[in-house]
Amino acid sequence: MTDGNVVFADYGKTTQLARGISILDAAKKVDIEISAVCGGRGLCGKCRVVVKEGSQNLEEVSRLETMSLSREELNAGYRLACCALLNREGTTLVEVPPESRVEQQRLLVAGIDTAVSRDPSVKKFLLHLTKPSLENIKSDAEVLSDSLTAQGHTTRPELSYDALTQLPAAIRDGAWTVTVTVWDDEEIICVEPGDTANRIFGLAVDVGSTKIAAYLLNLNEGKVVATASAPNPQIPYGEDIISRVSYVSKGEKNLRQLQGVVIACINKLLIDTCESANVKVSEVYDAVLVGNTVMHHIFLGINPRFLALSPYPPAIRSSVDVRAKDIGLRINPAAGVYVLPNVAGFVGADAVADALATEISKSKSLSIMIDVGTNTEIVLGNEKRMISCSCASGPAFEGGHIEYGMRAEPGAIENVYVDPSNLEPGFKTIGDARPRGICGSGIVDAVAAMLKSGIINKYGLIDAKLKNDRIRTDPIPQYVLSWERDNDVRHDISVTQLDVQEIQLAKAAIYSGAMILMRHFGVQPSEIEHVFLAGAFGTYVDPQSAVIVGMYPDLPIERVRFVGNAAGSGARMALLSREVRKESSRLVQDIEYVELAADRYFQREFTEALQLPHKDLTRFPTVAQLINRERWERMTVR
Amino acid sequence: MTDGNVVFADYGKTTQLARGISILDAAKKVDIEISAVCGGRGLCGKCRVVVKEGSQNLEEVSRLETMSLSREELNAGYRLACCALLNREGTTLVEVPPESRVEQQRLLVAGIDTAVSRDPSVKKFLLHLTKPSLENIKSDAEVLSDSLTAQGHTTRPELSYDALTQLPAAIRDGAWTVTVTVWDDEEIICVEPGDTANRIFGLAVDVGSTKIAAYLLNLNEGKVVATASAPNPQIPYGEDIISRVSYVSKGEKNLRQLQGVVIACINKLLIDTCESANVKVSEVYDAVLVGNTVMHHIFLGINPRFLALSPYPPAIRSSVDVRAKDIGLRINPAAGVYVLPNVAGFVGADAVADALATEISKSKSLSIMIDVGTNTEIVLGNEKRMISCSCASGPAFEGGHIEYGMRAEPGAIENVYVDPSNLEPGFKTIGDARPRGICGSGIVDAVAAMLKSGIINKYGLIDAKLKNDRIRTDPIPQYVLSWERDNDVRHDISVTQLDVQEIQLAKAAIYSGAMILMRHFGVQPSEIEHVFLAGAFGTYVDPQSAVIVGMYPDLPIERVRFVGNAAGSGARMALLSREVRKESSRLVQDIEYVELAADRYFQREFTEALQLPHKDLTRFPTVAQLINRERWERMTVR
Repeated sequence: MTDGNVVFADYGKTTQLARGISILDAAKKVDIEISAVCGGRGLCGKCRVVVKEGSQNLEEVSRLETMSLSREELNAGYRLACCALLNREGTTLVEVPPESRVEQQRLLVAGIDTAVSRDPSVKKFLLHLTKPSLENIKSDAEVLSDSLTAQGHTTRPELSYDALTQLPAAIRDGAWTVTVTVWDDEEIICVEPGDTANRIFGLAVDVGSTKIAAYLLNLNEGKVVATASAPNPQIPYGEDIISRVSYVSKGEKNLRQLQGVVIACINKLLIDTCESANVKVSEVYDAVLVGNTVMHHIFLGINPRFLALSPYPPAIRSSVDVRAKDIGLRINPAAGVYVLPNVAGFVGADAVADALATEISKSKSLSIMIDVGTNTEIVLGNEKRMISCSCASGPAFEGGHIEYGMRAEPGAIENVYVDPSNLEPGFKTIGDARPRGICGSGIVDAVAAMLKSGIINKYGLIDAKLKNDRIRTDPIPQYVLSWERDNDVRHDISVTQLDVQEIQLAKAAIYSGAMILMRHFGVQPSEIEHVFLAGAFGTYVDPQSAVIVGMYPDLPIERVRFVGNAAGSGARMALLSREVRKESSRLVQDIEYVELAADRYFQREFTEALQLPHKDLTRFPTVAQLINRERWERMTVR
Repeated sequence: MTDGNVVFADYGKTTQLARGISILDAAKKVDIEISAVCGGRGLCGKCRVVVKEGSQNLEEVSRLETMSLSREELNAGYRLACCALLNREGTTLVEVPPESRVEQQRLLVAGIDTAVSRDPSVKKFLLHLTKPSLENIKSDAEVLSDSLTAQGHTTRPELSYDALTQLPAAIRDGAWTVTVTVWDDEEIICVEPGDTANRIFGLAVDVGSTKIAAYLLNLNEGKVVATASAPNPQIPYGEDIISRVSYVSKGEKNLRQLQGVVIACINKLLIDTCESANVKVSEVYDAVLVGNTVMHHIFLGINPRFLALSPYPPAIRSSVDVRAKDIGLRINPAAGVYVLPNVAGFVGADAVADALATEISKSKSLSIMIDVGTNTEIVLGNEKRMISCSCASGPAFEGGHIEYGMRAEPGAIENVYVDPSNLEPGFKTIGDARPRGICGSGIVDAVAAMLKSGIINKYGLIDAKLKNDRIRTDPIPQYVLSWERDNDVRHDISVTQLDVQEIQLAKAAIYSGAMILMRHFGVQPSEIEHVFLAGAFGTYVDPQSAVIVGMYPDLPIERVRFVGNAAGSGARMALLSREVRKESSRLVQDIEYVELAADRYFQREFTEALQLPHKDLTRFPTVAQLINRERWERMTVR
């Protein structure tokens, strides 16, 4: 029992151990969170904990647990926190081993900074008002409006109800000097006494399925003053968006719950950024939000369940303006929240933000933008035409569905190479910590290295005949990266046959999606001049490894550009510029959407792309030079 | 102790007896409410109660009580419920005598029905939607919008946030048939599954200082389907609007409190009207509210305290659109509430509604509209020009500041005549009940009758030298209308010297206001072709008596028209017609406002108008014939 690993659960009613622990942690301020990759369905086996005391308070070991835990582990008190049900009062002492803990995850927050000319939706104006007299009685609203006109404002913004209720006191408290906040030249959303014109901030938020990033900007200067991020608190309800949609489908209450946790998380990031920049939350007068269509719907409290049913229609494509107080966002209650438009059910506001940040639509040359995630959005095009699709790439790139997969946290193997002469691996972990598992970039690196060294063939099959300690076949073929003695967990860390298969499925989804887009566009891969790789995985993966496994076309490396969290960049741009908001509306009108499920060529492209790097090696000339052709072609037999 | 007069108070902390009783009443569903006319300030003496048991639980008799209660009364256990403070636990048994009880007040709800061409702000449209396919994916919002266009709608109303959240489920629940509610051609506020097009209602509300009237209308048919009214629950916090403003000035919490009670009352009326018409509150998609400027501000949660300070500026003059849910009105939460515009701090939305209902602005001939209340609004004009003012007429016309005054409830003396030969009075009470006091129309009638019969002279002084049982001088000159033996209270009911003075002040305020308006307009009283008398008092008062006391100009009786609750009529018109709303906006721009306090002639006009009917009898030729000139001129000496 190491310090900080211990929690006490003391519950009267049946509850998942995972929930019990997490609730208690919050109460006790113990900073432990149990990792979960499968959304608490007992499938990933990543939430294993050891019950040290009070096992009588738990229901018996479930069938799912026997599938994930060995007999030895069960005897040693191992349970899956998501499956073990507490059903009796009393103290239960549970140890959370290192591999089951969510540590400070490496969340990508940075993204490219694309220049915009500053013209935010909200602006502040200082007004010196003229006091009315008995001979010239004016309402407070008229006094305000006249003063705006006298200052040269040609539009006559309406007074919002909030501003109206503030108006009489603000005027007198400010001794006839007030600062008004005007939204889009149309509406006065706020009236404050005195001169507060230099205090105007905005929040840009990227709600990813996995993480939420928030950027606090000074709207007068157009600069980021604070940044914060957190894992998406919806993860325990479903690792991927489809499992969250299925959770929400069970009832309106579940929708409120998922909406509630994401808004609470954004409020936390708001408060954190405000505190670090010494800004009051009431000084934040605007917010922009991006996210995929499911995140978009849940954030807005729109039931996303029809997004999972053919033809997968979103409730709305155009941008949404909603009042902060209507959804419980704790910025200035009179402020609005602008949610970027969606292209389609699975090409959401985040992809629009990616397109804004990469400025694909402004370029003469052909670009492809790939935002890798559980769903990977691809946009291909130039100033004349744009086309998009969404690929169901799955959670493998985030460490999901991988035997020893984990998120990009300290101890995650992120870079791998294999010495072809003796098949000995070398690797680097995040934070140079002792290994705990393999993250997305690590697994791609590993598969690429295994392909180059001939450990796997073009079908991804591990060559069980190779005589090497690190290649094992029991219970399934696997290649050991880290021996138990060298790492921080209690077992070897390997890449298994199934892991390779996950990567094949994932990369094939992306590659075939890109190819279908090119087919629709009528271009060849070689015509693509810019490849923008967005998202955390897209940034951390070794681009050569990605090409080796056949994730995206084999193009000269100088055409590839990492744009980081481009969705966040696009959100910031929309926060700073009304023109960008208009541009985003044009984009969703202009970007064509290809539904891969309805494309007659998709299945064939996908099947061919399952091979490593591809059935047709001529499409990957660079890779052809790197691999051992003989081993690549060889059919292995166990 | 008569049945229903008894309540028990059992409070641990110091509280006004009045509050304690009223709270207990609610809890016990005993239908007793203590009348209060001075706003609980201990001035009106109308809340006298008799403590039967537990007097030790009360604090000692206050100075204010000794001023209102005789020694005999104090010895008999009389207290003022607003002054007597409960400060000890225990049972306190209190009798509420009939004269202190608020009985079913006669609240005027009816008003003229002015025809409008029906074009309500909200309309419903039935839509049969086209299901999208994989080959033609559209968002739900686009499907809806396309269907509206296909139906021939030229505008493209925006989808409100509320409607957006309803949309996906409504479409599927209605099997691609939905009914949309569109506000002002601009915004879809509601989407409902199936065909609900014939269920669309609206609520018109007149918030008077004294009473609140609500009208539920079928917006498809333009008809009133139910009506309800209730006393304004703000009365206990201040009888007149100025005392309510002073209550609100003490803190923002008080504003929330007064706003809360008025909205709770409107919600009650909403539910009552909906129940009686078999309508769901969610089927009420629009509301229109009128009220004087103070009621307007409090309803909207705008602090009205600056309305009491020169130059008495309202926060806003133009109309206000606010969402029902933002102020807690329980109609459909997506619905809007339209609040009519104000002309000035003391010529509010109610006066605008009066002007709409009387159609002054559409007439070639000159009209004057007088809405008599604690504040009396006057609008004078025709299609070319309109001018308005507000007169501080005080509560006398509602029975306030009158020794034996009461509201227009059963038992109130409402009509009075005096036999000039023997000075014996005759009278009629509301409901022909035994007399309990005198209401507004009764006191005006009484003063007029006393003037005609020579009991009072032009200065309003009671002729103490007249030898008659009914004329007494102790403690002040008074004329007894009802002997104690003939009535339901325990004392004689008289008209005192001070009562006559109150009526003089009140009628002088109105008359001089009207004269100032005519002076500004450049017309003589005889040029006025229509006199519209609005409000409960204006409807129940005998017009001849009103002219005899000099309340408004002496014009042929056929020019006078009673328009009842014209403010409510105007609210209903605005509910049914968008053109009326536009007209109301034009009206507040067009109606000139005269601030009487700033008018150099006002003081002289007012002073001359204090006489009965007026210093200049030539202005009242009809009255000159009715009175005994000799007695009228006579200076009485006590």
